[in-house]
Amino acid sequence: MEISARNVLKGKVKDVNPGAVNTEVVIELSNGVEIVSIITKDSAERLGLTDGKAVYAVVKASDVMVATD
Amino acid sequence: MEISARNVLKGKVKDVNPGAVNTEVVIELSNGVEIVSIITKDSAERLGLTDGKAVYAVVKASDVMVATD
Amino acid sequence: MEISARNVLKGKVKDVNPGAVNTEVVIELSNGVEIVSIITKDSAERLGLTDGKAVYAVVKASDVMVATD
Amino acid sequence: MEISARNVLKGKVKDVNPGAVNTEVVIELSNGVEIVSIITKDSAERLGLTDGKAVYAVVKASDVMVATD
Amino acid sequence: MEISARNVLKGKVKDVNPGAVNTEVVIELSNGVEIVSIITKDSAERLGLTDGKAVYAVVKASDVMVATD
Amino acid sequence: MEISARNVLKGKVKDVNPGAVNTEVVIELSNGVEIVSIITKDSAERLGLTDGKAVYAVVKASDVMVATD
Repeated sequence: MEISARNVLKGKVKDVNPGAVNTEVVIELSNGVEIVSIITKDSAERLGLTDGKAVYAVVKASDVMVATD
Repeated sequence: MEISARNVLKGKVKDVNPGAVNTEVVIELSNGVEIVSIITKDSAERLGLTDGKAVYAVVKASDVMVATD
Repeated sequence: MEISARNVLKGKVKDVNPGAVNTEVVIELSNGVEIVSIITKDSAERLGLTDGKAVYAVVKASDVMVATD
Repeated sequence: MEISARNVLKGKVKDVNPGAVNTEVVIELSNGVEIVSIITKDSAERLGLTDGKAVYAVVKASDVMVATD
Repeated sequence: MEISARNVLKGKVKDVNPGAVNTEVVIELSNGVEIVSIITKDSAERLGLTDGKAVYAVVKASDVMVATD
Repeated sequence: MEISARNVLKGKVKDVNPGAVNTEVVIELSNGVEIVSIITKDSAERLGLTDGKAVYAVVKASDVMVATD
């Protein structure tokens, strides 16, 4: 599957913290940078997200804000 | 200013493509990875985004999806 | 690729309207219902979206609001 | 009330799963297709969402991604 | 229509700036505070948005970030 | 830090309701209008959000819908 979202960043799961409805997933990109994701608990289970698993962080361009110091 | 968005990734502007209402901004993270952002043209001008400028890509955790191969 | 977004709805492209930065894509689901998408022009071109092409409309659960009459 | 969101899809509630802050709502569209929504628990209660209730799934065009096989 | 989005703020249209695909709408809340919206051009036309028109700014709770100085 | 998000509304925290993964924050704008935010529990703790604290509600223009009666 190829998706319209412009940003598909390679990484691996570093941490998975399940809540009642949502689960927090910490993804470590290849360069050591961490990116945090909140997805539904069902999706986390469906994707079989466990520590070390190779994943992509997928982000739409319109969901990326820009900030300056 | 500190913000609730969990992901604040350091980088610099690599490209700025203005449209009528929105502008596309390509940000190069420190590791060479590129992340693409769409913001309003007014915001791009207000922030003075030009090639090479140091910026942050800011993304809410709930806007980060996870994908597997 | 499998994605955390909960909603992956099968359909086909009914219309593609490109702007300067963004493109509007109308997707007809199998039941005749239409769903409208705005993606970047680059993504529309990269995916080769043309009338009749088989696609999926992908929507995160947190982006689906509920309304009542 | 009429809203700018382009997608207003008719359906009925098929399932409601409340968490601490958010509630997951499964909506069955007229054609049997299911769409999953995460809204705040307060909103789910305010709207009186129970199984079988007629509702609309409301989605902004910019929140609809497009994927191809 | 009642909607799950938690924030429905009363105001009136102060400015409408159409682009090719999207339109920028400036809404003045009752207290003089301005809130800016980007919607599709089609939606702006469908809603008949013109200066002075009474409208609501509708925002999901998960789309509101919090910042501190 | 200056951010591309067009809407940065001054207010103070009126209520904080933590869940397992997400926290609901009610912000009272200077005019008495309330705006509700859902952020991650970690962010709420990192920002030290307690009743009465001065904060900003930050919202992207593309996350503001427009509705009419």
